[in-house]
Amino acid sequence: MVWPKKIHISEVGPRDGLQIEKTILSVAQKASIINHLVLAGAEEIEIGSFVNLKAVPQMADTEKVFAAIDKKDNITYRVLVFNLQGIKRAAAAGVKFVQLAHSASISHSIKNLNKTPSQMIQELPVILDYATAHDIVLSGAISTAFGCAIEGKVDIEQVFKIISSFYSLGVLDISLSDTSGMAVPRQVYEYCLKVKERFPAIRLGLHFHNTRGTGLANVIAGMQAGVDRFDSSIAGLGGCPFAPGASGNVATEDLVHMSQEMNIETGFDLPLLISIGKEIQKIVGHDTESFLIKAGMPYAANP
Amino acid sequence: MVWPKKIHISEVGPRDGLQIEKTILSVAQKASIINHLVLAGAEEIEIGSFVNLKAVPQMADTEKVFAAIDKKDNITYRVLVFNLQGIKRAAAAGVKFVQLAHSASISHSIKNLNKTPSQMIQELPVILDYATAHDIVLSGAISTAFGCAIEGKVDIEQVFKIISSFYSLGVLDISLSDTSGMAVPRQVYEYCLKVKERFPAIRLGLHFHNTRGTGLANVIAGMQAGVDRFDSSIAGLGGCPFAPGASGNVATEDLVHMSQEMNIETGFDLPLLISIGKEIQKIVGHDTESFLIKAGMPYAANP
Repeated sequence: MVWPKKIHISEVGPRDGLQIEKTILSVAQKASIINHLVLAGAEEIEIGSFVNLKAVPQMADTEKVFAAIDKKDNITYRVLVFNLQGIKRAAAAGVKFVQLAHSASISHSIKNLNKTPSQMIQELPVILDYATAHDIVLSGAISTAFGCAIEGKVDIEQVFKIISSFYSLGVLDISLSDTSGMAVPRQVYEYCLKVKERFPAIRLGLHFHNTRGTGLANVIAGMQAGVDRFDSSIAGLGGCPFAPGASGNVATEDLVHMSQEMNIETGFDLPLLISIGKEIQKIVGHDTESFLIKAGMPYAANP
Repeated sequence: MVWPKKIHISEVGPRDGLQIEKTILSVAQKASIINHLVLAGAEEIEIGSFVNLKAVPQMADTEKVFAAIDKKDNITYRVLVFNLQGIKRAAAAGVKFVQLAHSASISHSIKNLNKTPSQMIQELPVILDYATAHDIVLSGAISTAFGCAIEGKVDIEQVFKIISSFYSLGVLDISLSDTSGMAVPRQVYEYCLKVKERFPAIRLGLHFHNTRGTGLANVIAGMQAGVDRFDSSIAGLGGCPFAPGASGNVATEDLVHMSQEMNIETGFDLPLLISIGKEIQKIVGHDTESFLIKAGMPYAANP
């Protein structure tokens, strides 16, 4: 097996995690969580999204959150969007890093984005022009890249089609998301190898939900394919809209723990992450799917 | 990455899972669970243990459970023991498959078994003679093979020492247990390769607890080292005495799901396993750490 010396973790808790929480956090609470996560070592953090306010009320104040955070140098504060309208809000708010999400599954794309993958692709040049004109760095995320709760396994050709459109426009930072937690390690390994073979200049990232317990196993498979960029969510916040009550994103502290125990650098302070996670559990008012918060550090020598 | 065509799963829920449950199940309930697990595909199942009755009251009736189950041909009904007294109970009960557990960590061995690893090893020839004389097939389990909640990381030399004593006496079925859920994939891969290199005839098995979320990732690492024998526990029953509230053994249904989705045969009927797991949750009176029970099958095409 092969192991990276260091992995790059994008913290997505403030967006993918909080968006399904019923308790609406204040701007100050969100900004405080983001500031603390940066103190704990986050170098890239998805602070919110510019999407339909009615569909995702938790994200309605992303402009205010972005204005409120203590912005540090060399930290990537990223926002998720689905369309031109989203990137216009990013530009107006002064956000410089935007992730544009497409969905590989036709059913999921229509249900979530109200457009087919092909329709989404047609709009990409206009969105990229707008981003470039406004000095915004665009990255791409492909939802349901491995499986779809409606359609089942997603064929890699559907993924290639979307990557190809990003890639041909020069968008090289692309992540594959296992939106409904259906990916397994063998598939992750094969998809990553094929994507890297076909798109050699790609900077590939992976975004796993731990819905069926395979989250960290999928990370290991990604590492074997040479991937060193992973999304995760503080405290394991988040969930799967297709499986109510199921686990959410891979928890940042769980990913950091596993990596550090394998001598892979993450840049994170694990005890601090755990304490931030516990505070967030108090704020959202319930336990979350974090192994390290439940089990604690591996032995008494550690806090 | 390399993948086995088939894996051999030993179901340990009736022993490692139930032993920490406060609700004492009746002999009939335990026998029914075991019978159902065999119907669902279990070919090897740890039905109980012959250990200290006061320390583990749930296991006090293992003789009666063994007598009560519908014994099928070609199914390995296994019992766990720690010493000569345990194997004498096995012989008296007519049990033909016994797993003898040693601990690699000195502190854990003294705390749990009241003897050092070296003292345990000294008794091994007498126990093996007794087993042979009573037509009992002995296998070995090494607890805290990767880490110990008291001592931290366990050096592989401590593991070698125990395997060596089993191996020299002809006990070739040996499993490494991550008793307190501290193993990580890189370590699992390295330990398995080293063990297989030093003891070429070994039939190596792995027993993971999902305490810190790495259970299935560790299974993947074991597969990469050529291991195809894994313990797991229905419904994810079990826990870690050093981390109250933490997850237990890797859940059988989660291991079966991951394997099947990777085209690795397990011989199990996944929907049936899930329904057995749900019944067990009712009997023990609480939710357990099973991803498949919470999330359900991956897409609507499946139940």
